[in-house]
Amino acid sequence: MKAAKAVLSKRKKKSSKKVGLAPGTVAYVGDARDFDAAINVILYSETKDQEIKNASVKDIKFEDPAEGVRWINIDGIHQVSVIEQIGQTFSLHNLVLEDIVHTDQRPKLDEFDSYLYVAAQMVTYDADSHQIVTEQLSIILINNTLISFQELPGDLFEGIRERIRSSTGRLRRLGADYLLYAMLDTIVDHYFAVLEKIGDDLDEIEVNLLNEAANQDINDLHSLKRELILLRKSIWPMREVIGSLSKSQTFQKNLSTEIYLRDAYDHCIRAIDTLELYREMSSSLMDMHLSSLSNRMNTVMKTLTIISTIFIPLTFIAGVYGMNFRNMPEFDFKYSYAIVWIVMILITLMMVRYFRKKGWF
Amino acid sequence: MKAAKAVLSKRKKKSSKKVGLAPGTVAYVGDARDFDAAINVILYSETKDQEIKNASVKDIKFEDPAEGVRWINIDGIHQVSVIEQIGQTFSLHNLVLEDIVHTDQRPKLDEFDSYLYVAAQMVTYDADSHQIVTEQLSIILINNTLISFQELPGDLFEGIRERIRSSTGRLRRLGADYLLYAMLDTIVDHYFAVLEKIGDDLDEIEVNLLNEAANQDINDLHSLKRELILLRKSIWPMREVIGSLSKSQTFQKNLSTEIYLRDAYDHCIRAIDTLELYREMSSSLMDMHLSSLSNRMNTVMKTLTIISTIFIPLTFIAGVYGMNFRNMPEFDFKYSYAIVWIVMILITLMMVRYFRKKGWF
Amino acid sequence: MKAAKAVLSKRKKKSSKKVGLAPGTVAYVGDARDFDAAINVILYSETKDQEIKNASVKDIKFEDPAEGVRWINIDGIHQVSVIEQIGQTFSLHNLVLEDIVHTDQRPKLDEFDSYLYVAAQMVTYDADSHQIVTEQLSIILINNTLISFQELPGDLFEGIRERIRSSTGRLRRLGADYLLYAMLDTIVDHYFAVLEKIGDDLDEIEVNLLNEAANQDINDLHSLKRELILLRKSIWPMREVIGSLSKSQTFQKNLSTEIYLRDAYDHCIRAIDTLELYREMSSSLMDMHLSSLSNRMNTVMKTLTIISTIFIPLTFIAGVYGMNFRNMPEFDFKYSYAIVWIVMILITLMMVRYFRKKGWF
Amino acid sequence: MKAAKAVLSKRKKKSSKKVGLAPGTVAYVGDARDFDAAINVILYSETKDQEIKNASVKDIKFEDPAEGVRWINIDGIHQVSVIEQIGQTFSLHNLVLEDIVHTDQRPKLDEFDSYLYVAAQMVTYDADSHQIVTEQLSIILINNTLISFQELPGDLFEGIRERIRSSTGRLRRLGADYLLYAMLDTIVDHYFAVLEKIGDDLDEIEVNLLNEAANQDINDLHSLKRELILLRKSIWPMREVIGSLSKSQTFQKNLSTEIYLRDAYDHCIRAIDTLELYREMSSSLMDMHLSSLSNRMNTVMKTLTIISTIFIPLTFIAGVYGMNFRNMPEFDFKYSYAIVWIVMILITLMMVRYFRKKGWF
Amino acid sequence: MKAAKAVLSKRKKKSSKKVGLAPGTVAYVGDARDFDAAINVILYSETKDQEIKNASVKDIKFEDPAEGVRWINIDGIHQVSVIEQIGQTFSLHNLVLEDIVHTDQRPKLDEFDSYLYVAAQMVTYDADSHQIVTEQLSIILINNTLISFQELPGDLFEGIRERIRSSTGRLRRLGADYLLYAMLDTIVDHYFAVLEKIGDDLDEIEVNLLNEAANQDINDLHSLKRELILLRKSIWPMREVIGSLSKSQTFQKNLSTEIYLRDAYDHCIRAIDTLELYREMSSSLMDMHLSSLSNRMNTVMKTLTIISTIFIPLTFIAGVYGMNFRNMPEFDFKYSYAIVWIVMILITLMMVRYFRKKGWF
Repeated sequence: MKAAKAVLSKRKKKSSKKVGLAPGTVAYVGDARDFDAAINVILYSETKDQEIKNASVKDIKFEDPAEGVRWINIDGIHQVSVIEQIGQTFSLHNLVLEDIVHTDQRPKLDEFDSYLYVAAQMVTYDADSHQIVTEQLSIILINNTLISFQELPGDLFEGIRERIRSSTGRLRRLGADYLLYAMLDTIVDHYFAVLEKIGDDLDEIEVNLLNEAANQDINDLHSLKRELILLRKSIWPMREVIGSLSKSQTFQKNLSTEIYLRDAYDHCIRAIDTLELYREMSSSLMDMHLSSLSNRMNTVMKTLTIISTIFIPLTFIAGVYGMNFRNMPEFDFKYSYAIVWIVMILITLMMVRYFRKKGWF
Repeated sequence: MKAAKAVLSKRKKKSSKKVGLAPGTVAYVGDARDFDAAINVILYSETKDQEIKNASVKDIKFEDPAEGVRWINIDGIHQVSVIEQIGQTFSLHNLVLEDIVHTDQRPKLDEFDSYLYVAAQMVTYDADSHQIVTEQLSIILINNTLISFQELPGDLFEGIRERIRSSTGRLRRLGADYLLYAMLDTIVDHYFAVLEKIGDDLDEIEVNLLNEAANQDINDLHSLKRELILLRKSIWPMREVIGSLSKSQTFQKNLSTEIYLRDAYDHCIRAIDTLELYREMSSSLMDMHLSSLSNRMNTVMKTLTIISTIFIPLTFIAGVYGMNFRNMPEFDFKYSYAIVWIVMILITLMMVRYFRKKGWF
Repeated sequence: MKAAKAVLSKRKKKSSKKVGLAPGTVAYVGDARDFDAAINVILYSETKDQEIKNASVKDIKFEDPAEGVRWINIDGIHQVSVIEQIGQTFSLHNLVLEDIVHTDQRPKLDEFDSYLYVAAQMVTYDADSHQIVTEQLSIILINNTLISFQELPGDLFEGIRERIRSSTGRLRRLGADYLLYAMLDTIVDHYFAVLEKIGDDLDEIEVNLLNEAANQDINDLHSLKRELILLRKSIWPMREVIGSLSKSQTFQKNLSTEIYLRDAYDHCIRAIDTLELYREMSSSLMDMHLSSLSNRMNTVMKTLTIISTIFIPLTFIAGVYGMNFRNMPEFDFKYSYAIVWIVMILITLMMVRYFRKKGWF
Repeated sequence: MKAAKAVLSKRKKKSSKKVGLAPGTVAYVGDARDFDAAINVILYSETKDQEIKNASVKDIKFEDPAEGVRWINIDGIHQVSVIEQIGQTFSLHNLVLEDIVHTDQRPKLDEFDSYLYVAAQMVTYDADSHQIVTEQLSIILINNTLISFQELPGDLFEGIRERIRSSTGRLRRLGADYLLYAMLDTIVDHYFAVLEKIGDDLDEIEVNLLNEAANQDINDLHSLKRELILLRKSIWPMREVIGSLSKSQTFQKNLSTEIYLRDAYDHCIRAIDTLELYREMSSSLMDMHLSSLSNRMNTVMKTLTIISTIFIPLTFIAGVYGMNFRNMPEFDFKYSYAIVWIVMILITLMMVRYFRKKGWF
Repeated sequence: MKAAKAVLSKRKKKSSKKVGLAPGTVAYVGDARDFDAAINVILYSETKDQEIKNASVKDIKFEDPAEGVRWINIDGIHQVSVIEQIGQTFSLHNLVLEDIVHTDQRPKLDEFDSYLYVAAQMVTYDADSHQIVTEQLSIILINNTLISFQELPGDLFEGIRERIRSSTGRLRRLGADYLLYAMLDTIVDHYFAVLEKIGDDLDEIEVNLLNEAANQDINDLHSLKRELILLRKSIWPMREVIGSLSKSQTFQKNLSTEIYLRDAYDHCIRAIDTLELYREMSSSLMDMHLSSLSNRMNTVMKTLTIISTIFIPLTFIAGVYGMNFRNMPEFDFKYSYAIVWIVMILITLMMVRYFRKKGWF
């Protein structure tokens, strides 16, 4: 739960810094970072591939490579000067640069005359803290160059790099649009990984609740619902992004990529289905929990009521004959004590019968 | 309930295995299976029919039979090599093969240039465990050949095979598109069978709840709601599948099949209606149950309160005259005891009247 | 409530019988009936009218009457042979025949080349059992002949027959399409009659709930909600039926009928509005009831708590001086008894003041 | 609340009278009235205006006045003969006449070849009974003549008449379409007056609920919700009416009126917004109330539990030493009494500490 | 909470004053104000800028400045004469003037032949009173002149003025349409500032609720929900305003502004997303709170029940032997007292074991 709150707080801090600035001002609004932005360039075509680690921003030229695809990856958007220089090199609109450094964008696709801008949220699950961690990924697709901007080093795309290096497969043959697809597909696939973890948590909470669980589980359920709400904010717009990508004209659609996009779109809808399913299930769990609480309360109250209604009258009778009046005729009557016992036993039996008839046992 | 959980868990396990693989990688992600994939081919036309059991994958050729329809059924998608060979023979797209072996697809219809791919969920009800069991069915329609892929041996289509063998009726006269329709229609019909079982369970739970049922019934209701949520995930998209099938160009629509498709579409909507009706009814049941719990609690509390408020003051009076002070004038007064009894009876009568006026009896 | 359950059970029983049969198989799936199907034919034109009771199915010819309208009404769809013969005479599609005998159809309109098929649900209210009774009505409109199929003898259309016999008015002048409209209009009008009865029940339940009603009323409310859910299933699709009827080309629309259809459509929407209004009201009633239950519980608990917290300490004090220790100095002190009484009265007053300050009185 | 019920009951009574009649039968179905229908005609143009009170229905001719606008207002639709004569004079369709006398129409706009029919609900708030009172207004716009039908004498349009009489302003200059607009605008404006009153009631209920109000307020809230539900039925369709009016071809749209219609449409949407806002607020109030009830119950129970758990054990101890066994060694021990007191005080302190630690004080 | 109520009350007071007036009557309906309307004019072009403070309404001419943009800002719409004079100068429609002085408009965009009218709600958060304060802003865009009408002095646009004065940047280069955009963008940005504050309140309430908070927090949550409902009323229609602005033909769209509008539109959607997220979170919090209340009640009741069920039977036993019958054989038996103690301890142990088995400890 602390995790979700952290995410929430982070998100909120960001926007307020911006109020009052002119639109298009490139100002980083996220958490303070203490590392330098790192630029990695991968050049690949069907026949060769090359990686340039820690490239200097000055070496990045506008021109596409002679052949194949160029993938420029930048980790560390907090270093605004780097972003601005990239922006200048590729003539990106100031609003795009603002969106890149202004984390917590809603996933979206913006088409410009000569390039595409895609904003997405990479979602991972931190197993230690049961936290969902989101990181903004911005992608510029300009001719055969793809530029990706990330908040932090380390990402989900090591598999893609591996596929590029291994020199076989579709990725090396097809253009930068396929690379863009491959990155989005990886992000969507990770939604399932996260949803699966949430599903596990949901299962655990359910088992606990069925076993008359403690208050803690309800707090867990509440925080899980919150994570689902936050996750939804990332996943829902992604569907639109992929949907409009397949309709985009800038995006060099060849038939092959179109099929893949449809596949990614299907996956996205499936993730949304699962999300909504979990939301409904957690609501149903809450209902069940409330009903089970009431049920247990009923049991507790019945116990109290049975014991009380049996013994309170008996205690009263005992109290009567504990009085110290001089002339209580019963005291001197020989069988009084026995009769009192008989009366008390009869009352008890009647009560027990009454409760049994009412089905309280 | 255990059943629904099992289904849920199965579903979740699948997707995570895939994360990191290239799109289009044909990797089976379901439960481990210990049987070999079995291929059965049925050839039929208006005049003749022939069944080839346990055909070898190598014998399957791309070419359609000279006349009539070829139905290739494969049980056991876990044997990926078989699926890949079929894929090669019929030039299926890798993404389609991936979808075939990647169970828990959302029902969908994908149109390709030369073939159709339909994914559906066969839903059956295991009476022993009160479980809904879902199994993925993938269908490829390519010219006059229909290829169906199932997870397990045994299916819902024995009736269709019987109709083919019996050599009368529409099925033998019409093409592969009618066969596809007949299979989807069978699946939709089975939704009703499952919904009927759920309706019976719902009736039983209702009767139990009206008879002041135990906590168990609420857990049953919760698990029933979960099954409805899961079932919905299978049925809702089916409507779209059938709807877009009737609009598909690849699908060789003759007027006859179109009428049947409309009929299947109507059935699908009816199944959805019934599903939503059950969902609303289970919600209403939950409300009624909560209200009835509160009501019962009220009854319990009233009993306790009536007994307590009558006897606690009386016990107090008895307690007062059980005190051992030397000079309590009442002790020596002759009629004290009788007066105390009279007072106590009066108090009781007043209380009873008060509660009666309040309508607690 | 029993009624709604009966309806529900009936509905469920039907579908499962069909699973496994070929589509278009004409098999009756409803309750067993012990009467013979009766065919009544009414021939009317502007100038004359004629009724043929208990016509034989063999006498029914395909040809329209020379002039005017032919209305063939069949009570008893369980006699499948009759339905099939009619189907043969008028070349009806097998799927239509299946829908006719397969009761519990969703109201729908199917257009064929030469005829229209309309399925509707006649809804009546059985005052004795507070039950909604639904009966399927199937209508075939083919040229100037209208064929209606009903489950049971006795229907809502006696008023229409009366208007035909009385030889005045629009009905005699206009064609079979107007007759179809008149029948649907009658069905829609009966929705209001049923809704009115439900509204009366709702009013009664509300009055009872406001008067701190018993648990029974909540069960009534629950069953009323269920009837609304079932009713909705009949009324909602009717709107579509009438809507698409006015767009149908087969349907011989003259301007006159079009205006009437729009009127029926408006009525249908009004019925739906009322239905949704009742649904919301019953939800609001449930909320109010739950709140009122809590309120009453609060009152009960306050009574108990006031009595207990006043008398339990007093009883304790009395108990203390009922102890039998030898050397209890208070026993010998002359004013002890009076002081104890004073203390007890003071405690009582303090308690009363405390509760009054808390607003519990 | 009684008011809303009255409205509800009225609404329900109406429809059932109609069942069985031929469509287009002009039969009044509302409450019995004991006054005669009154016809008032206002003729006005830019230069002159004339009012004819209590005109005879025979004097009403079909022809428009030579110049300017004719407004015929009829109070008392229960006098069906008058309505029918008007209908004959202006060749109105029977269905329209039926709708006019059949009160409780859904607001709607029906276009005919030569005239427009508008049905609306005038809503006012009866301050004495906190009731919403609805009255049906039917308007026929036929060339430059506007005919309005009301259930009762007295209406919302005195302001419009005043503006006509005062001979300045737009109303006198523009045609009958502007008069129609002005009437609808007045009705929409009255929605706000009614909503405002409901808002005041809502505020009052909220203040009462925050001050731990009585059960009465919840009943008020329930009846307020019901009035909102009923109001919604009047307001929502009004938006469509105004929307389609601006698209109507019969309606003589000049640019001027179009702007005013857009304005009325905006007001309508604003009224709907406010309505929905109140609905949400009343739901939120209900939630808050339920939570506050639970909270108070908690307080009550804590009080009871604290007092009981402290004194019940003490009373038990006193009871033990009130026993009359011969050989109870404690009785003869000198300090027994003091020790018992010390033990009892210790127990009390422990209990108090325990409850304080639990945060119950 | 008081704040939200104030806002609500203000809103409601306004509309009722208007009922009965002719449409287009310019009558101020808001709170009484005691300051004079102030007019400030800013003239700017790419090369120069000029501010005229407290301009007289008579000096305002219809003609645009020779070059650049004219921004006329009017604080104080309660002075209707000023508004009317402006309206006359620029030939504004009376309905527009009515909307300007009639505060609490729904945000909207009205296009006229020669000018645009935009109504928006400026939302700020008063930190002292935890209040949302809304103020209506009306904007007229007519050629290169922008006229803004505000209720009160002091606004959100000081940043824009600063950017105009600083003579650098886009604002000075582009036309009045960009100024309009910049103002709307500022308003949308302030939504985030307000949402952030609400998010902080929500966090605080959540922490308090998790720490078993007092009733006060629920009232806070209720008032927060109300502020969200009110805020929603301002933000939702803003999306439409910006959306239709980008489609407006009057609005001099150059490509540059279009991109900015899209950006503002995205921000608006993001604000709506956050709003809905907070609404869902506050609902989830309410659920959690109710569940936690039930949980605590359970704990309280268990404590009471355990203590009562253990001690009530023991007290009964003690009461029995406190009776004063002559011939109670136990009294004379030597070990009676010890046996009674043993019995009582055994009963206690049994009870404790029973409760432990039930999991109540």
